[in-house]
Amino acid sequence: MEALTETDAEGLWEAVQPGGSRRVLLAALEIFSAHGYNASTTREIARRAGMSPAAVYVHYRSKADLLSAMSRTGHAAVLADVRESLVGVEDPVDRLHGLMSTFVAWHARNHTLARVIQYELLELPPDAFAEIRSLRRKFERLLRSELERGIDSGDFHIADLRSTELALLSMGIDVARWWTPQFPTPEHLGANYADLALRMLGAERVAAHS
Amino acid sequence: MEALTETDAEGLWEAVQPGGSRRVLLAALEIFSAHGYNASTTREIARRAGMSPAAVYVHYRSKADLLSAMSRTGHAAVLADVRESLVGVEDPVDRLHGLMSTFVAWHARNHTLARVIQYELLELPPDAFAEIRSLRRKFERLLRSELERGIDSGDFHIADLRSTELALLSMGIDVARWWTPQFPTPEHLGANYADLALRMLGAERVAAHS
Repeated sequence: MEALTETDAEGLWEAVQPGGSRRVLLAALEIFSAHGYNASTTREIARRAGMSPAAVYVHYRSKADLLSAMSRTGHAAVLADVRESLVGVEDPVDRLHGLMSTFVAWHARNHTLARVIQYELLELPPDAFAEIRSLRRKFERLLRSELERGIDSGDFHIADLRSTELALLSMGIDVARWWTPQFPTPEHLGANYADLALRMLGAERVAAHS
Repeated sequence: MEALTETDAEGLWEAVQPGGSRRVLLAALEIFSAHGYNASTTREIARRAGMSPAAVYVHYRSKADLLSAMSRTGHAAVLADVRESLVGVEDPVDRLHGLMSTFVAWHARNHTLARVIQYELLELPPDAFAEIRSLRRKFERLLRSELERGIDSGDFHIADLRSTELALLSMGIDVARWWTPQFPTPEHLGANYADLALRMLGAERVAAHS
């Protein structure tokens, strides 16, 4: 089993307190990533975290609780990063470039987490699923509003809005499936994909940072 | 557990003979899709196929053998479909449009199979993995040669070839993650995505069929 890469760990997990709770969550992420959620056991997670199964239950009630917690952390983090990338940026072309490069880079940098939370989405218990769906819809509404901003300004020329949104989401999310450190860095890939996204949107100008 | 949709079944499996062998393979696909490969058992597959576990082993030696067989079928099928779409087409813009719309539509139409073979790729035994990797490389070389054809003809203006290839692959493959019959039809989505792909390639003309 591959350990989490450094890029997966940075910053994202600091808010998970106390440290024992964070240790269990990271162990669960490695086990889910290696074996799939359904084939993973709390016993394996406990062993990976260097704890007894009973000690794991102090922090999380169940395997489903662990999946819910990591899914919440990941979905909230990508939304926060993308919003942050828009702060103080006015131009619709620059905003879309920032959104897309941040979204893509996030899925490369956090590929282990992203794979688990994307591909095990339907394993979430109903209440967690509803909560995560709401976070995903916030992201989708943000993307939609940025596309509309660029249409209104005359910068974007979009033939089919729904297909375009779906393609942009796929370009970001699918990165988690294949990215490894052998590929371009998250930042480099993000910038290139953001340039491609602007072409898809029929933007004639390029972004200030591309 | 969701049964395979009609679109998943058409044509693709006819070559799997005898019928008992095909029945086991389709049962395995449903079970892998519902529970993940690692959490699936030969016993469940046998039950789903309406056979005894011993009868399953007449057709396939192991669970890994089943995954290898469906992966081989899927990878060979998408490659054959895409090659077929290019027969008799000369124009580089039309060829890329055909390739991309076929690739995307295939992943919508065969989303259950595509999900399993894409996301369980690393579960393949080494000899099957090598064989499947070779099929994937054939597809990637085909895509590369089509991009080069359009560059040579002056139709495509590509800033970063590697990122562009990766983005085109993602646009196709990721469709399998989310496509359901509530979305646009495979053909409609394929045509729209092929139009978006041509924009990404900096093609100034549109394809004859778009």
